[in-house]
Amino acid sequence: MEKAKVIFQPSGTRGEIKKGLSIIEASRELGVDIEVLCGEKKVCGKCKVRIEEGSFEKFGIHSTLKNVSPWQEEEKKFINEDQEREGYRLGCCAKIEGDLLIFVPEESRAGKQVVSKAARDIHIEWNPAVKYYYVEVAEPTFENSTADLERILDELNKKYRLSDLDIDYLAAQGLPSQLREGKWKLTVAIWMDKEIIRVLPGKVEDYYGVAIDVGTTTVAAYLCNLATMEVIDTVSMMNPQCKYGEDVMSRITYHMMHQDGLIKMSSDIIEGLNNLVAQACEATHPPKKNRKKNVIEKEGAALCLNHTDIIDMTVVGNTAMHHILLKLNPEYVGVAPFPPVIHKSMDIKARDLGIRINESAYVHVLPIEAGFVGADNVGVLIAEEPYKKDEVQLIIDIGTNGELVLGNKAKLISSSCATGPALEGAQITFGMRAAPGAIERIKIDPETHEVDYKVIGRDAWRSYSEPDEMQIKGICGSGILDLFAEVYRSGIILKSGTFNKSQKSKRFRRNPDNDHPEFVIAWKEETSIGKDVVITQKDIRQIQLAKGALHCGCKLMMRRMGIDKVDRVKIAGAFGTHVDREKALIMGLFPDCEIDKIVSIGNAAGDGARAALLNREKREEANWVSRNVEYIELTLEKDFQQQFVEAMQIPHMKDRFPHLKGIVPDNILNQ
Amino acid sequence: MEKAKVIFQPSGTRGEIKKGLSIIEASRELGVDIEVLCGEKKVCGKCKVRIEEGSFEKFGIHSTLKNVSPWQEEEKKFINEDQEREGYRLGCCAKIEGDLLIFVPEESRAGKQVVSKAARDIHIEWNPAVKYYYVEVAEPTFENSTADLERILDELNKKYRLSDLDIDYLAAQGLPSQLREGKWKLTVAIWMDKEIIRVLPGKVEDYYGVAIDVGTTTVAAYLCNLATMEVIDTVSMMNPQCKYGEDVMSRITYHMMHQDGLIKMSSDIIEGLNNLVAQACEATHPPKKNRKKNVIEKEGAALCLNHTDIIDMTVVGNTAMHHILLKLNPEYVGVAPFPPVIHKSMDIKARDLGIRINESAYVHVLPIEAGFVGADNVGVLIAEEPYKKDEVQLIIDIGTNGELVLGNKAKLISSSCATGPALEGAQITFGMRAAPGAIERIKIDPETHEVDYKVIGRDAWRSYSEPDEMQIKGICGSGILDLFAEVYRSGIILKSGTFNKSQKSKRFRRNPDNDHPEFVIAWKEETSIGKDVVITQKDIRQIQLAKGALHCGCKLMMRRMGIDKVDRVKIAGAFGTHVDREKALIMGLFPDCEIDKIVSIGNAAGDGARAALLNREKREEANWVSRNVEYIELTLEKDFQQQFVEAMQIPHMKDRFPHLKGIVPDNILNQ
Repeated sequence: MEKAKVIFQPSGTRGEIKKGLSIIEASRELGVDIEVLCGEKKVCGKCKVRIEEGSFEKFGIHSTLKNVSPWQEEEKKFINEDQEREGYRLGCCAKIEGDLLIFVPEESRAGKQVVSKAARDIHIEWNPAVKYYYVEVAEPTFENSTADLERILDELNKKYRLSDLDIDYLAAQGLPSQLREGKWKLTVAIWMDKEIIRVLPGKVEDYYGVAIDVGTTTVAAYLCNLATMEVIDTVSMMNPQCKYGEDVMSRITYHMMHQDGLIKMSSDIIEGLNNLVAQACEATHPPKKNRKKNVIEKEGAALCLNHTDIIDMTVVGNTAMHHILLKLNPEYVGVAPFPPVIHKSMDIKARDLGIRINESAYVHVLPIEAGFVGADNVGVLIAEEPYKKDEVQLIIDIGTNGELVLGNKAKLISSSCATGPALEGAQITFGMRAAPGAIERIKIDPETHEVDYKVIGRDAWRSYSEPDEMQIKGICGSGILDLFAEVYRSGIILKSGTFNKSQKSKRFRRNPDNDHPEFVIAWKEETSIGKDVVITQKDIRQIQLAKGALHCGCKLMMRRMGIDKVDRVKIAGAFGTHVDREKALIMGLFPDCEIDKIVSIGNAAGDGARAALLNREKREEANWVSRNVEYIELTLEKDFQQQFVEAMQIPHMKDRFPHLKGIVPDNILNQ
Repeated sequence: MEKAKVIFQPSGTRGEIKKGLSIIEASRELGVDIEVLCGEKKVCGKCKVRIEEGSFEKFGIHSTLKNVSPWQEEEKKFINEDQEREGYRLGCCAKIEGDLLIFVPEESRAGKQVVSKAARDIHIEWNPAVKYYYVEVAEPTFENSTADLERILDELNKKYRLSDLDIDYLAAQGLPSQLREGKWKLTVAIWMDKEIIRVLPGKVEDYYGVAIDVGTTTVAAYLCNLATMEVIDTVSMMNPQCKYGEDVMSRITYHMMHQDGLIKMSSDIIEGLNNLVAQACEATHPPKKNRKKNVIEKEGAALCLNHTDIIDMTVVGNTAMHHILLKLNPEYVGVAPFPPVIHKSMDIKARDLGIRINESAYVHVLPIEAGFVGADNVGVLIAEEPYKKDEVQLIIDIGTNGELVLGNKAKLISSSCATGPALEGAQITFGMRAAPGAIERIKIDPETHEVDYKVIGRDAWRSYSEPDEMQIKGICGSGILDLFAEVYRSGIILKSGTFNKSQKSKRFRRNPDNDHPEFVIAWKEETSIGKDVVITQKDIRQIQLAKGALHCGCKLMMRRMGIDKVDRVKIAGAFGTHVDREKALIMGLFPDCEIDKIVSIGNAAGDGARAALLNREKREEANWVSRNVEYIELTLEKDFQQQFVEAMQIPHMKDRFPHLKGIVPDNILNQ
């Protein structure tokens, strides 16, 4: 196994890499983050890198394009002749055959995403799966030399009517010393009135659990006091699996193409969860000097929790995230008819999963509905409880995949629609994650077509800033939706989605390389990547596909239910939080609804995980609802194709938005 | 941490040892077996070694008595002045302070014990805790894309009326591939009608489990076919914890005196069990060339089992062995009022214990009665079922500790008596384990006091052999009991246990060193240790203490039950198998009983483990009986001391054994 020296610039990260590995594989080994949205399927073109040629004495290597494997067909699509001359390659295609100095351009660097998944204030009844019980027992004598455990069990039965209790093997190991340390008074943590999982000397009142929402892109953890139901802290992170592919299908593909893919992805998320829990615990310690900046300093926070104090955990996630976390083969979830390995909820010992909380604690993984409607959707359902209401609700959870639930207490149906990652910024020429440098809000002047925008990481809009202050890198999800609505509202594109060829703005132009039409959102000077940020006809089509899938999904479900109007539209997830409701209506993201009946429900999936953490009946409710939501496979509807194509059109504005008259030019309003 | 070179002779084992460790600790590190009956409490004197002085160029070391720590008071008791001059020390006392060449005399070497724990033919109803079920399920379609697991659960419910089944997390991981490999036909292993623990493609009929009996000294494993109840193989080994001390109290002491003592002892027995299971599995493979000799070659044996095929395990053991195996602090079991940590049976995932059988299988550990009456006794009870009989049974299990059960279906009481290890050969000057070179049978001519004996590892008695062929090293448990009965029957000792001073045999003499009376069993020439093997007055007292404890225990229990005669005496364990019933009666080991009502029940504890493996109702029965046997603490009886002293006496022979008239000299018979 011959090795080569590989150096990544500008970070300077270096190491010896086995020859034959791709540049992406090498970057992973060395811990260099390169965007790979497609999971190395060679279709996203995001992993462009530049091979630097020459002898680099400082590093003792001679790097040349001869040291990488020959060109692959797929690369031509993303790398033009100029770039080819400059040494550009796709990291997923080019294999290392000798020493290399590799430059990772800024747009290829996987930035740290800005995530915000705060806990909402929802009503939950107190009834956690784990509860603490205080008992006092008599000291053993010759007359009564009953075992430590049976002594406690007798008392638990007498005082709390708890019977037939088991004890976790590891909790039993601590029993004799805890009992004697507590002078025969102790607090016992019991899971589901079934199993003793912790024994503590003396009287302990507060105890803690964590609710987890594993999203494809972001992961959130809610540290809760199980006694008071208080949310102590919310922490979140990027899903560390992002490096294996941006969306669910890329991860499944990664598993199928790499023997240890599943293990690697599972270990990464588990390690990530462990870090999240550690971070949440650490934040409860008294402030220290020199601590990491991303830990929120809380005044007077001095609970001093550590991982063994976390005595329960609940997890939601879509079916693929669920399967990968649990090392359940996700292969068949990706192939029609998409059967999952398991529907029902699981209670798994944290230690079996490798989760570092109390060693005897369980992790409760919520049930999943179907191959494309996972435990995250079940979380949304038990948080929102549409099955308890009369009004017909349409609940939309747009992540990389769109998950839809429609109905009320009479009937609930669910389905998923392949919105694709376009609404999150992927598959868009300058799309990117919600990280610093991403455009998140856009306004386009209908007259001049001048563009104003706001960038993550800066408070001011562009028009209040110097161009070179903006430092933009691309456009993130919420920016994409804004952009789409704005280019339509300002007449840059037509109802069909094609560019209006008659527009006069200098921002509308043909690309000098391929002669395709495009619209410039930000000029080179405003960016940190040294080129104009544009939106292309292909980008518009991608967004249309996404919005078409979603709209068509909603429409077909309503048809199934025999209704033409819903009482309420609830939008979950970060998308719901950031979406401009009016713009969503303009572009026809979902069927029309009174604007004040459209509500954002935040991270409802995470709320569901929290509900299941704080109330064990919610777990039963979750199992019940997951088997009682009827899953509809929309693509099997006879006229699906036609409905989909129709849904890609942008609906007439005129009749729907009379209040826009005067704001939007007549020619556009009348399209 | 300075190190010294240490070489053990005659094996030649050598290594670098941290200075400050004792010779015993060094021997353990290097894998040299030295007898340590007392668990390094410096009271057994079995670990005598000789420090060789001089420069040993071959090994590049200079060994001298100066390289060991100063003499300790305890050593004087066991090492006389001659030996001191020769360089003898106790391995547990002498600490290494420089390079050493250490000679381990033959009598100090821990020999490999001869163990025989064959499975008895007892009646057990078939109803194992784990059962295999065969199902065929439909392939997923768009119309029915239910998950793999729910597909199987539905079928198990329809076909076998099994509902509310869980699945072990690791078994779930194999589900999708096994299901597809088996083309939607599969065999499911279900534990206690509760949890799926294995999924196999296609139809599988045979499946396997192991019943384990962890004795203080020996460990036996019964590999069984759970479908046919056949015992495939019985394998046994020395308990690897013997190196930490011979008896229960020494092991508890080892735990209390070493911080990692419990972990070490637990790991050793678990590793031992893993080896036993591997050995039993290996024996089912087709014979290979060059295989180890201790694996029994079976004709046509080609099951080819491996550890993952072992799908259930049951374990019995006394309370200390139980606690140490499970890493439950055994400290309080050793201190009055001896409360255990737990009574009830436990079902522990094999993987949590580190037991290498199927990763999803459970280990069922049987319940314990009291601090000194453990799961082994519960095993005896469920194998013998005295609680289902009218006749009053006295069940005696003599190991290092005597465990007694008395009663019938009306009432059962149990107790333990501190027989000590004398009846197993420990605490006797020339006592040793049942290993090659140990005297196991003795006859003494009442007239001439000539001794005839049989040695383990040789078929012929001494009188048929040349003296130097015997190669004896000491006397094992069954030899001790024979010896005691014989020295009494032949008038060498009196009813009180003291030597008969008027005997004329040259075998009766005073020890030249300490002037104490002793009786020579074997002359120097017959041994492999180069000295006369004798029995001393102190030895006789030790045996009397043991027999007194047992007899007194039986008597006090009978008094409690208000009976003066039992219908049947059952003797369990190796002792029961080897004991000469008449000799046991002569010496008054237990209350008188018709000789044909005394039966040996072999390894009944192991039989109980097997019963619990093959019939899950036996597990419930075990939990029931363990809570319904009344444990009696004999030492609390008011006249315990007096009863004990009386029981140490050897009872009159005359009235009890009229048939001995003429065989035994009158003066002895009339004592």
